[in-house]
Amino acid sequence: MPNPTAAMLVIGDEILSGRTQDTNTNHLATELTAVGIDLREVRVVSDEPSDIIDAVDALRKRFDYVFTSGGIGPTHDDITADCIAQAFGVGIDVREDARAILATNYKNPEVELNEARLRMARIPDSADLIDNPISKAPGFRIGNVHVMAGVPAVFHAMVESVLPTLTGGAPLLSLSVRFKVPEGRFASRLSEIAAANPDLSFGSYPYIKDGVFGSNIVVRGTDPDRLDAARLALETMEKEFSS
Amino acid sequence: MPNPTAAMLVIGDEILSGRTQDTNTNHLATELTAVGIDLREVRVVSDEPSDIIDAVDALRKRFDYVFTSGGIGPTHDDITADCIAQAFGVGIDVREDARAILATNYKNPEVELNEARLRMARIPDSADLIDNPISKAPGFRIGNVHVMAGVPAVFHAMVESVLPTLTGGAPLLSLSVRFKVPEGRFASRLSEIAAANPDLSFGSYPYIKDGVFGSNIVVRGTDPDRLDAARLALETMEKEFSS
Repeated sequence: MPNPTAAMLVIGDEILSGRTQDTNTNHLATELTAVGIDLREVRVVSDEPSDIIDAVDALRKRFDYVFTSGGIGPTHDDITADCIAQAFGVGIDVREDARAILATNYKNPEVELNEARLRMARIPDSADLIDNPISKAPGFRIGNVHVMAGVPAVFHAMVESVLPTLTGGAPLLSLSVRFKVPEGRFASRLSEIAAANPDLSFGSYPYIKDGVFGSNIVVRGTDPDRLDAARLALETMEKEFSS
Repeated sequence: MPNPTAAMLVIGDEILSGRTQDTNTNHLATELTAVGIDLREVRVVSDEPSDIIDAVDALRKRFDYVFTSGGIGPTHDDITADCIAQAFGVGIDVREDARAILATNYKNPEVELNEARLRMARIPDSADLIDNPISKAPGFRIGNVHVMAGVPAVFHAMVESVLPTLTGGAPLLSLSVRFKVPEGRFASRLSEIAAANPDLSFGSYPYIKDGVFGSNIVVRGTDPDRLDAARLALETMEKEFSS
C-alpha cells in the first residue's frame, strides 16, 4: 500500500520578500518522512485571500494531508483562519473553547484579552483545535487541513501535537554515500544501479567544497535489507571511480 | 504601473524529504525584491515528470517570470530540461553551443565529456543559454521560464547572469521596527496605522527570544518619504506601548 501523501502551504509575504528564510517546511518534511507520510508538494503564497483559498483548495483535493504555516496571529495581516473557513464554505467566529484556552495565557484576561487577541480565538465551524503549549493560541484542523502558526517554536510544538493523530505508512529509510568525484564520472554506472533496483529511489546531490566537486548519493526505500544491498553496490562503485 | 511578478519552482525530492534545507528561494527572493520584481508564489515539487510539467505550465501562465532550481545535472534523476521541453511542446537534444561550452570544463573532453555529462548539453529548441561561470554546464531560458541549477553556488551565479536581462519595477523598500512587547497589545493600533496608509504594506512578524514575546513590524513601499512617515508613526506607537 503506498504511503499517505501530504502538502505544505506556507503563508506569508515575509518569505516571498526574502526577509525571512522558511525553516518550517524542512522541519515538517523531516517529521513526516520519519512516520511514513510522503510530503509531495510545498507552496508559498502571499497574504492575499484569493491566493490562500485557491492553494488550500487545490492541495486538499490532491493530497491526504495538508499543513499550513503562518497568518493566525492577532494582527490585521493574519487572515489564514478566515480564508480556510471560506475554502471549506463554513462560518467562523470567536469560539468559546478557543477563548477559554487563550485566556489562560494572561494574568488578567478581562483586560489583556483585547479585541485583537480575540481574533486568535476565531475558529472555523466544525474544526478541532490543535494544542499550542508555547503561547496557548490554538491551531486547528478542518477536514484534512491542519492550520498552524508561523513562528518556528510554535509551529514545531503544534506539529508535535498533530503527529499522533496522523495515519503514517512505512517509514522511508535512507542511506547516504559521499563520492568525492564529480557526478558526471559515475552517472552512467549509477543509472544502471538505479535501473537494477526499481524498488529503491536513487538521488545524486552534487556539492562543491573548497573548489572540489563531489556528490552525495542518497538511496531511499522502506526495506532495510534492500538498502544494505544498495550500499554494497555503491561502495563497489566508489572503489572503481575514486581510484 | 504594478511591478512585474515572478514565481519560483524548486524541483527535488531532497527538499521534500527534509534532507536538504532549500536556500535558493530566499536568495532569489532577496535579489528580485531589490530590482522591483514581486515574487508571488513558490512551489516545491518532486522529481516526477507530470508534477514538474503541471507546475511549470500553471506558473508560466500566471506570472511574468518563472525561475526553476534543480534537476539539470548529468544523472538519471535530472529530468527538468526534458520536462520543460514537453511543457513548451518543443524538441530537445544535445545542442552544439551548449556542448562547446561544456567541453571547456574538461582537460580532455573527448574522454571526459561522456554520455552522462552530455545530458547537460540537452537544451530545448529555441531556448537561450544561461551562463554558468562555476561549472560551465549552462542553464537556459525559454519563454518566460529560467531553468537553473540546484547547487546553491551555481544557482547564485546563474541568477547573477539572468538579472540584467529582466525588466524590473520600482524596488520595494522596507523598514523594520522591533517591538519588545507581544503583538497582541498593539495590534489594534497597528491596524489603524495600516488603514491610514493604504499605499504601504504593514506586516507583523512575532518572535520569541529568551522566553520573551515580541514582534518585528515591517513596512514595505516604493516611496522613501512615505516610509519615513510610517517610521515616525511606529516610533510614536512604540513609546506608547513599551512604557
